[in-house]
Order: sequence, then structure tokens, then C-alpha cells
Amino acid sequence: MDYNKLSLEMHENNKGKISITSKVSVKTREDLSTAYTPGVAEPCRKIHANKEDVYKYTAKGNLVAVVTDGTAVLGLGDIGPEAAMPVMEGKAILFKEFANIDAFPICLDTTDVDEIVKTVKYLAPTFGGINLEDISAPRCFEIERRLKEELDIPVFHDDQHGTAIVVSAGLINALKLVGKKMQDVNIVINGAGSAGISICKLLLQFNVGNVVLVDRNGAVESSAEWLNEAQKDMAKITNKHNEKGNLIDVMKGKDIFIGVSGPNCVTSEMVATMNKDAIVFAMANPSPEIMPEEAKKGGARVIATGRSDFPNQINNVLVFPGIFRGALDVRATDITEEMKLAAAKAIASLIEESELNEDYIIPGAFDSRVAQVVAKEVARVAVESGISKLNK
Amino acid sequence: MDYNKLSLEMHENNKGKISITSKVSVKTREDLSTAYTPGVAEPCRKIHANKEDVYKYTAKGNLVAVVTDGTAVLGLGDIGPEAAMPVMEGKAILFKEFANIDAFPICLDTTDVDEIVKTVKYLAPTFGGINLEDISAPRCFEIERRLKEELDIPVFHDDQHGTAIVVSAGLINALKLVGKKMQDVNIVINGAGSAGISICKLLLQFNVGNVVLVDRNGAVESSAEWLNEAQKDMAKITNKHNEKGNLIDVMKGKDIFIGVSGPNCVTSEMVATMNKDAIVFAMANPSPEIMPEEAKKGGARVIATGRSDFPNQINNVLVFPGIFRGALDVRATDITEEMKLAAAKAIASLIEESELNEDYIIPGAFDSRVAQVVAKEVARVAVESGISKLNK
Repeated sequence: MDYNKLSLEMHENNKGKISITSKVSVKTREDLSTAYTPGVAEPCRKIHANKEDVYKYTAKGNLVAVVTDGTAVLGLGDIGPEAAMPVMEGKAILFKEFANIDAFPICLDTTDVDEIVKTVKYLAPTFGGINLEDISAPRCFEIERRLKEELDIPVFHDDQHGTAIVVSAGLINALKLVGKKMQDVNIVINGAGSAGISICKLLLQFNVGNVVLVDRNGAVESSAEWLNEAQKDMAKITNKHNEKGNLIDVMKGKDIFIGVSGPNCVTSEMVATMNKDAIVFAMANPSPEIMPEEAKKGGARVIATGRSDFPNQINNVLVFPGIFRGALDVRATDITEEMKLAAAKAIASLIEESELNEDYIIPGAFDSRVAQVVAKEVARVAVESGISKLNK
Repeated sequence: MDYNKLSLEMHENNKGKISITSKVSVKTREDLSTAYTPGVAEPCRKIHANKEDVYKYTAKGNLVAVVTDGTAVLGLGDIGPEAAMPVMEGKAILFKEFANIDAFPICLDTTDVDEIVKTVKYLAPTFGGINLEDISAPRCFEIERRLKEELDIPVFHDDQHGTAIVVSAGLINALKLVGKKMQDVNIVINGAGSAGISICKLLLQFNVGNVVLVDRNGAVESSAEWLNEAQKDMAKITNKHNEKGNLIDVMKGKDIFIGVSGPNCVTSEMVATMNKDAIVFAMANPSPEIMPEEAKKGGARVIATGRSDFPNQINNVLVFPGIFRGALDVRATDITEEMKLAAAKAIASLIEESELNEDYIIPGAFDSRVAQVVAKEVARVAVESGISKLNK
């Protein structure tokens, strides 16, 4: 299937993918007087008297901004805000399809951290949540951190946390299958950028035994001289045994390989040096770090990729719709680590032990239960941890 | 009809009025691969190679931002960005209903001119046009001027120009009816804020005989000490005979009264001092400067208001949908004075001489011909004046 050609045609024929529609009728003079002047003045007055009423009388509570500056779009890199628009529109329609959320692309013509933070803050009155997307590291870390601090609506950088959550969900089930425990396993993550670091951080929340991050320069280890600030922070809380060397060295004796790097950097020989019942998540797109059949040759027992044409697709469409649905439903002021853990567990829980097997550790992208159960769990945790503004 | 109550119910039951929907199907794995990864990378690449292709493959070309800072909302004043949201959503659904334009509310949490200008520029990659709305004077003048200079997409402050255009359209037909000519008439405009000044400017483009602006302090005249900067500029090009005094004084001997001020500031006695066949546009909302029956008592021949329950409603829903439709259709880089004049003439032209009468000088709000003919004329003028980017 030539998806490039199909996609060009689809985008050209429809002039993009999103449309703004009205939820009310404006066909008569009475409609106009109700939806617009003079009637509309009344909800305005109510909101002016009590700002919280904006959630009662406007679309804000279900509106999510999909914000990018176009600096790290898919595998294409820094292609600019205009060229990022098809991806942001795509994200918007997935929000709609999977969680009935009204999401809108905001493609910003600036890459300056301060300006992006300020702009998103200025836009906040319109939106119930902010989904950051395809913003390059390390800027994405600061942008998300500052916006989380300064806004009282949920902010979520999907490239980091969406991936981390769905990887965690897959690992929960993979470990169940091979009979190992989170706190015992040794993990190598190849790719120490925003996705790798975010996966690592969430796995640490699960109290995994040990994780080593590897970059093209080698293992992230305290004495390495090439570490950036984010990697230095990670060196302090990972790599318990101060492993050095390259990926070939570090893969030896690991239980789990997680790849968020590039194509074909892992061989079946390297997989063969891993522990028994190795788990390989090779998620580089469109070409994984190692093809599933090669990983199997090397002795891997459970294999996942980012692709829909192999079993066990690690796809963050399983995460962001439900995360935001849950957060919006209870007007959570943040998306916390606890909510992320709950989301991962909720996704994993959908596969019964009787169904669980090497080719089915994670629900399919179109499993309609996923967004629902994620939303429910995320909402529950938000309420329990006191960050829901509902009924306050 | 209690529109306040109806409106509250409508807004609460629907949680606002706008929704984001998908123009394409995302029900299958193939859909996902076409609308999103991996296929979506191809339109991204095309746009990266040629930025103009953003109009070909995305929704940008039909997307209009309805931008406000909530400082001058309806007659409610500075109620803030959240409380402005119902009006901006209302505007968005009118854009959709009347011109099939996808408009989205942008309610900004800043009132600083520089910050608003910068923010809108940052947002521009997503949008094909910018509709400024309910931003208080004199900031609205500078914001619009700078955005028009700095952006290559159309920018239009509807409160100023929408009103000016529909007033001009009404006057064209009213003058036809009373047998007077634009270049001969004497006009008084009560209200020297953004709407009054904008109406005045457009009427000057029609070469009207003389216009005098009146504010609560009296006539806008060069020697007056209370003029703000915008009014000083107007004093230079209006009030040919240096009329001084208050509205009572200035109304004497005028052919046309245009009110964009407040309720009940004009009496039938004042109307009686105007010239024969006086034209009274009393557009304060919801209570006009003078009620139609009172104006008639004073001898006015043609009367228009902003209300839908009297004849001749001066409603800028007749303008903005068609203006933007025309500008977007030919990818005009601006909305020029010529395009505004063309819009006014186009609206007026819809009423045949045989239909024209004192109670029918302007088409009704739901006359579906209006947006079409306005769009056509606006597009034609844009192309002729060389500011269309289509087929270039």
C-alpha cells in the first residue's frame, strides 16, 4: 500500500482534515438571538461574575490545543510550523475519534522557549488542556515544566509521556508472560533523547531493577563527558553499576531492550547476549532497530515495534485520548506521575491472563475499551489525589 | 421571548457552541496510516519543500482565528477573555453557517498591544485569516494596523469595518430612496469611538459631502481640547465648517444621523431639526438612540436600527462571512478599502429598485445571496488589484 500517495490525495481532496462545526442551530432569527446577540450576553455576564462558569457555558472544557513549533516532527526533524500542520491535524482527529475531544492545531512561528511559554499562557483561556507535540529536546523539557507550573489546566508532552506510558503498559504484560518482576529486571534503553529519558523516568516510578540509557556516544554514566544537562540528571538515578561502553557492551545480560533510536542498530547476535526470555521493544519508525524475525533469531521471546504491520504495536494513540479524556472529565489541574502510572496499568489490564501471549501483550489501536478504561483510571487517581476541580 | 434564559440553557446544554470534527474517516488501520503515520509524512515533506503547499494539504486556507482580548465585548465592556468566549464561539458558528468558513475562538490572556501582535503572528501558520473582535479602542487601531503590515494573510477588525460596510450599504439604498447623492449629503455620526471613526472613514471613501463626528464632549473639531489621537486625525478630514457644540446643535440641518453611541440620546424634536427626508440609523444595542416610532414622529423618512425586531436591521453578519469567503477564495493578502467599498455596494445591489422602500433598504440577516455576492465582489476586486496569491 503506497500510503504516501494515498495520504497526499486524501489531504489535497479534503483540504486538510479538521473542520469547525456548530453544535447548535443558527437557521432562524430566534436561533441568532439565542446563540448570538442579544442572548449571548447572558452567559458572558455569568462567566464575568464567576470565571469558573466558562466550563459550564463554553466549549473550553473539551478543547485541547495541540501545540507545536515544528522542530521535531515525526522522523522529519525541524520542518517548521506550516509543514507540521498535517501531523497536528491528524492528532486532532485522533483525539476526536478515540475520546470525543475537540482538539485544535496550534502551529507556532517561534522556536524561542520563553515566547512559546508566554504564547501558550495567553491562549489558555480558550482551552481545557494543552498537548505539546513534536517540540525538540531539550527545549521541550523546559517548556512543559514551566507550563505545568504556571497553568491550572493539564499540560502533557505526548512524545515523552505518551510513549513512556504505552511502553510501560507493554512491559507490564511482557514481564507477566516471561514470569519476571519489574524490580528484578535489567533494562537498556537505546536513545537518550526526550522519549528515552521519559520512558526511563516512568520505569523508575515502577521501581525497575536497573536501567541504563545509551546514546550514540555510549552509555549514560556519570563520568561520561558528553552528557547534556538532562542526561547528567539521568546519570544520577540510572546505571547502578556504572556500565560504560557502547550498545553492544551494554546489551549483554539485560532482560529488556527498549529502542527509541534509529533503524538497524541491533543485530540478532546482540540480542543473543541478553538474558533468557529477552524482551525487545524496537520502536524506531518506520524501520525498527531490529526486525522482529531477526530479534527472534537472537532468542528474544517478546517483540514489539511501532508498526501496525507487526504484532504488539506500541502506539501512543492508546494513551493520549484517554489521558486527556480522564483529566478533562474531572477538570484535573495537572497530569501527574500517578495518573501516568494508572494509565499504563489500565492499558495492560485489558488483556486477560488467558489471552496473553507473545503476539498479544498490548491492545490494538482500535480497541475501543482502551480510551474508556484509561480515562476512568486517570480520572479516579486525579480525584483521589485532590487535583480535580470538579464540584469544588 | 426571554433570550437571556434561552441562551443560558442553550450554552449549558451544549457546553458551548463549537466542535472540531474530522473531514476524513479514521476507522481502520489503513485510515490511520493515511491520515496519520506513516502516510502523513508525505504532505509534511511537500510543505517543507514548498511552504505554499500548506494551502493545498491542510485546513489553513479555510481557517479564520476570531481573536479577542475581551476588553470591549458587546455592550458589556472589559469582561476578560474567558467571558468573551461565548461571543467568539458565536462568531465562529456564524462564519460556518453563512460562509462555510472554519473559524476558531482565540481568547487572549493579555491586553498588551505588543504581546497581542506578537501572539497573533506566532499563530499565523495555522490560519488563513485573522478576524479581530471586541478589542477596545484605541488599542484595536494599532493592533490591526501592525498585523496588516506584518502578516501576509487578511486581517479584519469586524467591529470597525463590518459595521462601516453594512452602514454604507444601507445608506446607498436609503439615499436612492430619498433621491439624494452621497456627495451632497451632510452627516452626523454620534459616537467617536472605533465604530464611529471607522464608519466615518469608509463614508469619506464614498466622497460624502460632509461628516461631523460627535462624542459625549461635543463635536469633533480641530480646536477641541479633549480629542484623543484618533479623533485629532479625524478632525483634519471631517467637519468642513468647523461646527462646534453638542449633538442637539450638530444635528440641525443634517441629512443623515448615524448613532453608534447609547440609548435614548436623541429625541423626535432633535430629528425634526434635520433636513427633509432625514435618514436615521440608530444602532445602539439593545436600546437604540431613538426608537423608530419617535424618529418617525420627528419626520425621519428612513429608519434603521441594530435590532432584528424592527425593519432595516444593520447587522454585520451581512459582511464578515462574505468578506472572508472572498478573501480566502482568492488568497488575498489583505482586505483593502476597495474590497470594503465593493462589499458595501454588493450588499446594496441585492435590493432591486422595484423592491426598495422605507422598510426594506438592506437585505435580511438570513438572505443567503448576501455572503455569496459579497464574496464574489470582494474576490474580484482582490484579483484586479493584484493582491490575490492564487495561481501565482
